[in-house]
Amino acid sequence: MGNFPFSAIVGQDEMKRALLIAAVDARIGGVMIFGDRGTGKSTAARALAATLPPISVVEGCRFNCAPDARDDCPDPCTSKKAHKMSVPFVDLPLGSTEDRVLGTLDLERALAHGEKQFEPGLLAKAHRGFLYIDEINLLEDHVVDLLLDVAASGQNLVERDGLSIRHPARFVLVGSGNPEEGELRPQLLDRFGLSVEVKTPETVEDRVEIMKRCDAHEQNPSVFAEIWKEEDAKVLRRIAKAKAGITKVHTPDSILTDTATLCKAVGADGLRGELTVMRGARALAALEGKKTVTRAHLKSIAPLALRHRLRRNVLDETGSTVRIERALEECFG
Amino acid sequence: MGNFPFSAIVGQDEMKRALLIAAVDARIGGVMIFGDRGTGKSTAARALAATLPPISVVEGCRFNCAPDARDDCPDPCTSKKAHKMSVPFVDLPLGSTEDRVLGTLDLERALAHGEKQFEPGLLAKAHRGFLYIDEINLLEDHVVDLLLDVAASGQNLVERDGLSIRHPARFVLVGSGNPEEGELRPQLLDRFGLSVEVKTPETVEDRVEIMKRCDAHEQNPSVFAEIWKEEDAKVLRRIAKAKAGITKVHTPDSILTDTATLCKAVGADGLRGELTVMRGARALAALEGKKTVTRAHLKSIAPLALRHRLRRNVLDETGSTVRIERALEECFG
Amino acid sequence: MGNFPFSAIVGQDEMKRALLIAAVDARIGGVMIFGDRGTGKSTAARALAATLPPISVVEGCRFNCAPDARDDCPDPCTSKKAHKMSVPFVDLPLGSTEDRVLGTLDLERALAHGEKQFEPGLLAKAHRGFLYIDEINLLEDHVVDLLLDVAASGQNLVERDGLSIRHPARFVLVGSGNPEEGELRPQLLDRFGLSVEVKTPETVEDRVEIMKRCDAHEQNPSVFAEIWKEEDAKVLRRIAKAKAGITKVHTPDSILTDTATLCKAVGADGLRGELTVMRGARALAALEGKKTVTRAHLKSIAPLALRHRLRRNVLDETGSTVRIERALEECFG
Amino acid sequence: MGNFPFSAIVGQDEMKRALLIAAVDARIGGVMIFGDRGTGKSTAARALAATLPPISVVEGCRFNCAPDARDDCPDPCTSKKAHKMSVPFVDLPLGSTEDRVLGTLDLERALAHGEKQFEPGLLAKAHRGFLYIDEINLLEDHVVDLLLDVAASGQNLVERDGLSIRHPARFVLVGSGNPEEGELRPQLLDRFGLSVEVKTPETVEDRVEIMKRCDAHEQNPSVFAEIWKEEDAKVLRRIAKAKAGITKVHTPDSILTDTATLCKAVGADGLRGELTVMRGARALAALEGKKTVTRAHLKSIAPLALRHRLRRNVLDETGSTVRIERALEECFG
Amino acid sequence: MGNFPFSAIVGQDEMKRALLIAAVDARIGGVMIFGDRGTGKSTAARALAATLPPISVVEGCRFNCAPDARDDCPDPCTSKKAHKMSVPFVDLPLGSTEDRVLGTLDLERALAHGEKQFEPGLLAKAHRGFLYIDEINLLEDHVVDLLLDVAASGQNLVERDGLSIRHPARFVLVGSGNPEEGELRPQLLDRFGLSVEVKTPETVEDRVEIMKRCDAHEQNPSVFAEIWKEEDAKVLRRIAKAKAGITKVHTPDSILTDTATLCKAVGADGLRGELTVMRGARALAALEGKKTVTRAHLKSIAPLALRHRLRRNVLDETGSTVRIERALEECFG
Amino acid sequence: MGNFPFSAIVGQDEMKRALLIAAVDARIGGVMIFGDRGTGKSTAARALAATLPPISVVEGCRFNCAPDARDDCPDPCTSKKAHKMSVPFVDLPLGSTEDRVLGTLDLERALAHGEKQFEPGLLAKAHRGFLYIDEINLLEDHVVDLLLDVAASGQNLVERDGLSIRHPARFVLVGSGNPEEGELRPQLLDRFGLSVEVKTPETVEDRVEIMKRCDAHEQNPSVFAEIWKEEDAKVLRRIAKAKAGITKVHTPDSILTDTATLCKAVGADGLRGELTVMRGARALAALEGKKTVTRAHLKSIAPLALRHRLRRNVLDETGSTVRIERALEECFG
Repeated sequence: MGNFPFSAIVGQDEMKRALLIAAVDARIGGVMIFGDRGTGKSTAARALAATLPPISVVEGCRFNCAPDARDDCPDPCTSKKAHKMSVPFVDLPLGSTEDRVLGTLDLERALAHGEKQFEPGLLAKAHRGFLYIDEINLLEDHVVDLLLDVAASGQNLVERDGLSIRHPARFVLVGSGNPEEGELRPQLLDRFGLSVEVKTPETVEDRVEIMKRCDAHEQNPSVFAEIWKEEDAKVLRRIAKAKAGITKVHTPDSILTDTATLCKAVGADGLRGELTVMRGARALAALEGKKTVTRAHLKSIAPLALRHRLRRNVLDETGSTVRIERALEECFG
Repeated sequence: MGNFPFSAIVGQDEMKRALLIAAVDARIGGVMIFGDRGTGKSTAARALAATLPPISVVEGCRFNCAPDARDDCPDPCTSKKAHKMSVPFVDLPLGSTEDRVLGTLDLERALAHGEKQFEPGLLAKAHRGFLYIDEINLLEDHVVDLLLDVAASGQNLVERDGLSIRHPARFVLVGSGNPEEGELRPQLLDRFGLSVEVKTPETVEDRVEIMKRCDAHEQNPSVFAEIWKEEDAKVLRRIAKAKAGITKVHTPDSILTDTATLCKAVGADGLRGELTVMRGARALAALEGKKTVTRAHLKSIAPLALRHRLRRNVLDETGSTVRIERALEECFG
Repeated sequence: MGNFPFSAIVGQDEMKRALLIAAVDARIGGVMIFGDRGTGKSTAARALAATLPPISVVEGCRFNCAPDARDDCPDPCTSKKAHKMSVPFVDLPLGSTEDRVLGTLDLERALAHGEKQFEPGLLAKAHRGFLYIDEINLLEDHVVDLLLDVAASGQNLVERDGLSIRHPARFVLVGSGNPEEGELRPQLLDRFGLSVEVKTPETVEDRVEIMKRCDAHEQNPSVFAEIWKEEDAKVLRRIAKAKAGITKVHTPDSILTDTATLCKAVGADGLRGELTVMRGARALAALEGKKTVTRAHLKSIAPLALRHRLRRNVLDETGSTVRIERALEECFG
Repeated sequence: MGNFPFSAIVGQDEMKRALLIAAVDARIGGVMIFGDRGTGKSTAARALAATLPPISVVEGCRFNCAPDARDDCPDPCTSKKAHKMSVPFVDLPLGSTEDRVLGTLDLERALAHGEKQFEPGLLAKAHRGFLYIDEINLLEDHVVDLLLDVAASGQNLVERDGLSIRHPARFVLVGSGNPEEGELRPQLLDRFGLSVEVKTPETVEDRVEIMKRCDAHEQNPSVFAEIWKEEDAKVLRRIAKAKAGITKVHTPDSILTDTATLCKAVGADGLRGELTVMRGARALAALEGKKTVTRAHLKSIAPLALRHRLRRNVLDETGSTVRIERALEECFG
Repeated sequence: MGNFPFSAIVGQDEMKRALLIAAVDARIGGVMIFGDRGTGKSTAARALAATLPPISVVEGCRFNCAPDARDDCPDPCTSKKAHKMSVPFVDLPLGSTEDRVLGTLDLERALAHGEKQFEPGLLAKAHRGFLYIDEINLLEDHVVDLLLDVAASGQNLVERDGLSIRHPARFVLVGSGNPEEGELRPQLLDRFGLSVEVKTPETVEDRVEIMKRCDAHEQNPSVFAEIWKEEDAKVLRRIAKAKAGITKVHTPDSILTDTATLCKAVGADGLRGELTVMRGARALAALEGKKTVTRAHLKSIAPLALRHRLRRNVLDETGSTVRIERALEECFG
Repeated sequence: MGNFPFSAIVGQDEMKRALLIAAVDARIGGVMIFGDRGTGKSTAARALAATLPPISVVEGCRFNCAPDARDDCPDPCTSKKAHKMSVPFVDLPLGSTEDRVLGTLDLERALAHGEKQFEPGLLAKAHRGFLYIDEINLLEDHVVDLLLDVAASGQNLVERDGLSIRHPARFVLVGSGNPEEGELRPQLLDRFGLSVEVKTPETVEDRVEIMKRCDAHEQNPSVFAEIWKEEDAKVLRRIAKAKAGITKVHTPDSILTDTATLCKAVGADGLRGELTVMRGARALAALEGKKTVTRAHLKSIAPLALRHRLRRNVLDETGSTVRIERALEECFG
């Protein structure tokens, strides 16, 4: 069955905004989605991937390399041709081992031909696309760590079984988890760029609308896709324009000072918080087609960029989002 | 010894209703049976499978493929012939490993011929039939998760040992467990479509009747089967008719609003609850040969679809079933 | 050293009764012996096995198949001859792995000839005999579960290492354990047909008699066996007659009602309790050469069939046996 | 350095008595030594083994088979010659695995010649000698269990890796342990025939004597051995005579009644206690060259045979030895 | 993307000082960095490595050997040529096994050519450079221990898989960790030469400056590097001069007495504390171009050298740094 | 860098005395060093080994065999030549496995030539030298046990992988540990001959002196060694003389009585305490060039030989050393 169209998702604006920002600037470094079960977390990410235009890949390349990026490929692909493939969406299975994620020695070849060849893993599959990890809090810490390293550096360096290989692995990392089921260590959370919270829709109207759309999609996916085709195309054009325009967006010094003031006020550890606010605000401006970052962009991105970076305050049980909003209020009135 | 006839099962109406619904619309996504030991949970599922008409399978196909579904099969079966086989009923052994469930590399072939071939697992065996898991709460979470993924998508995607294979795996997942022995995580429970509760029969009359039928079945299974043949044939016709008619069943908007109102009232997280109520009510209507879903269908399916999706309410120790009934009462009088 | 004669066992009537019943009707489903260490639990089961007449087995058959049951054998035995072997008695070693119990791929053959052959396990060895498990509470749950499955179905289905084989495995399962050393889960206990309790003999006379018999057996086993030969032959004839006569034993409806009433009164979960009482009473009648089951049979078998199926009652610390006797008293006066 | 002579051991009469009894009648079933560290537990057992005359073994036999016991040997030894070897004394290393104890498939041979041959383990090495286990409470329960099974049956049955072999393994099992370091389960303790308690010598004279003898032994083992040669020869003659005479020793019924009365009085579970008292008293009589067992023998052996078989009595913290002595006093005055 | 220039790091003077000292005198033995997440710990070490001039390495050498140090190399490199490579910076991945760290047998070669060759590990890669371990407290103790052994001795001795090889492995070990996430054992901490504490910058000005520099670096790394080139060159010259001059720096006896007095006063266990203070003060003098160590150097290095060597004082919850400062105050006024 | 000279070690007299005694009479059975980290425990043992004169070894011998001890060697070395090698000092790496310690099958040879050859382990390397184990309390108990067995018997008996080999392994076992980090089981401690306690030096003068010597050693090891050459030669001559003279040292009976009286008074379990006092006192006499053991020797050795053999006394929290001194005072005034 085809994917659910991105535009047909009812509500969940914050999640959609975060995914769009990550699609515009992958350096943001991953989106963490907290929320109730059954609220369509994976559906949204999968839908966005399906919305994007197919990518051009060197024929036979095992690493999804673009024709103009052959130099990064560890394989000596000689084919001159390219073919189109849809944007990769890799769903990391629970219980995945390092081997399957990173890639490993191709044992069959090693035994048969006495030749060492690298067998690409899921990271190679996700190159130029999305890597989705449901219930990321159930993954072992060192695998999460490793995924975040790769997501940050954009390349996968494998040193094992006597292999030493490096291949490009640029993808939008999307993790989801239910905070009630155990938490990620703050060290790991801090390395996600943005976080969003999704909730079960509250109005009966939304719920009925969702049932109707799901049912329509289920009954006839292609008819349903046709209906939302135009909306999805708009999203696509918006992303493309933002990607092109982002390097020209200006970030005034006053915005940087605002950012630092806010981060200090909420007490975020380290520097990743303010760097993410700066980058996110800029992507937001680009998505809106603006040339300059404003305080409105900052306010809009701050909860997504800082919420998961606050220290627990034992005396103040206020939720993270509220604390950020209060700080925004105090700093900028 | 032959299977116990489905119609000869004494009582246990709720369990039988859930199994019939799953047989009509496999998208419901699995039936979870809670209950006392020794109450015939596996007997019922096994009996329903045996009642269904044999399926037609491509000769020699290792994936139970139907002659008109060759395209989904990862094997290049060339045989033009088909043969009949009874509906598969796979009983997942306790302590099953991922390997045995998913399938794995055929090591013998790999060593002997240097050739990688996929050795189908229990999921392939269960295709087009039933997968029964007794004491599912004793399985490791990630295996349950994996089974629910496959049950939901209808296909098994294996990425391991350098294999990358996808084969159809559509089956009715039936799990059973005793809540006193440890619970499934809410995340996993939520992914079951329906749940039922079975109890030891309470009247002496029922108990004597059961002893008599079990004894008769044990003494001479074929004679016993003969007696119930006609009843089982009726069940079969009812399922067949419902499967054919379900796409034409109309679900009025008022029913969707009722469903959303009810789910909101009982406080079920996420959207799976209302989607299941909608689908289950429709299957029930089809089983009754009706053209339109009514509030009666909704009321009849609600406990089965929502009972396992309620949040624990610390202040309200009332059982889930009672809470749903109360909500039904309050919403629809 | 030869086995101790069954008839020479001093006292322990309940244990002997349960073993005789299981020898008459294997569908009873296993005997669980609770009791003090050093009370001859394994001696009794082993003695009964040695008492039974040798069985006739196809020459060279690795599965103990009878000449008239070649069809069930997974091996293509061609020999027309049969030979006699004594009734198998397999003592399951502590720490046995699934492999050794179920059977496995014959690795030697696989490596040498590239041929997959099944290497039968202990279940195959026990076919048509006894499988004894000392301290069954120390076995892993899933192995116990698996043994009970095989004992119940009478066949062993092996699905592993790319093998798919099914062979007959009908045996009397006898487990022993000391309740002070950890308990079986109720789920597992419930699957044993009967349970008995053995104790150290209390009178000095019995103890002296036991010492004398053990000493005589130790000093000269063959002379000792000669002495008890005739008694053992009687036991044998009684079993043979009961096996032949059991299908003709009548179970009146009033007895079934009594059984259901009793099981309801003691509060046994599920239906295995009453089915076992029914079957056990019938086997007892057959052992006594009776044509009809009476309330006396029911009373005699009830403690063995129900004792291990009662729920713990936190408020009533009375032992299970006493609770059953009380219920018998209340129901039937 | 040669072994310390058995006769040169200062004090420790109870330990020496138990070892002599086990040397006379191996069916006693193992000696458990409790006691302080550094009190010469292993020295005594080793010394007794070295005192015994060399045994005659078929040349090249891997199982220590005697020339007149070729039939028990699983190997087809063809050599007609025999050679002498000293009585085996095997010291079971801590952390021994089942493989090393039981024997296993000879992998080298299997790989090189595609032939399955059994590689004998430590049990085969100990045949016709002693198997000593220091700190037996640190061994895994199932290994202890297995050792006691073999010690009791006198043969080792190996069923693994597709091998099925049975070889004789008759040895005196000697275990030692410090009760302060964790205990054997009662089930296992009960299977040892005798137990003794050793303590650090209390008088300065004994301690000085021990230092002198150890020093003399260390300075010049052969000179020291020469000094004690005659004493050791006496021990040897006593054992030989007792082994020859034991079958003719008479055990009066009154002694059996005494034994049963005593065992009942101390409340030993099961029957192993009285059987061991009976056998031990008889061996003691034989060692003394007597024709009839007397109450004195019974009294002398009772603490060794029963001490480790008493139930813990929560209300009576009196040590086991004292309880047995009190019972002896009460029963026989 | 190129590395961030060392000189462009805002603040964090203590961390920079410790790294410079370690670069001057590797015998100091490793730098442990405690601190908040996201404060650029790895950035600083990586930047320093990138600042240093390339090293000259024998062509094809797998151990980074210098042309004038061929004798230490276990490989028989015959090439006369040398090539330049940048100073190695090895980032030890979380969950690294002993194999990957130490090096291991080259299995491929062993299987293909029956030849044992050593496959160098990460320690060989780090030779003559930096080995960085993030979250060192999550590594297993024995791996940390092993790394500290190698760091201390400057060579890696591998004894495994039948290999016995020794290769030079001199590197600056830099570990980082968050004390809130579990601690290193005091034994291991003591073996680090210096420790520093880093914090999130506190002024808005610093934070804005950091954002600006990070942004500039991200937008155009080469332009940014150009800006800081001159500053980095100064650092480089300072290190080179200090390395050349350190052997001529004089350490007066009074400074040694001061050091011993201080270490005694703070109660540091063992001798590593004072040896490190002595060496660190000397390196500091060399970095300042001084010929003699003064009390000012001692005071400047003491917190870095002693902070992680203090015993926990249950009654005095004062932080380590404060306790050292107080002792400095008391000893030297 | 060369070793630190033994004579240049400042203070730590007790540790030096114990090492010298062990060097004179290896039967003492190992030295256990308790103490603070960083107090030069391994330095002292390593220094002593380096002080001893090189040993003469059969050319090519893998077991360090002396030319006059070829018979003990399991290898058939045919070389007539011998070469000199320095006294082995083996530092047992943390986390060593049984394989690496004991030696194992040479897999390479087994695979390549189908030949079983023994690959010597660390025990063979340590033959005729020192085996040092830092933080011995972190080793697994059974490895410690095994090391103590070999140290006591002077030979290593390997029974595994179908190998049965015995080779000489005589070495001084030196273990070190910090009692605050977990303790050895009393059983294991008891098997060490001597134990010493080391502390961080207390005077500023000693500390300064240590810094100066370490610095001098570090700056120029060969110059430093030259300075201490003569002192080390004296130590060497003293050991050589003691080894030659020890067999002629007389131990009067009164000393043995004193020893037994003392050991009884302090309440040491077992006999190892007094045997060690006797042997240690004798070695001390030999080191002093005396012909007769005196009470002074006994007093000097008693704390080292008994301290680790005392029972915990719950009521008397006095340290072991104090308790021994008090007993010495009471017994001998």
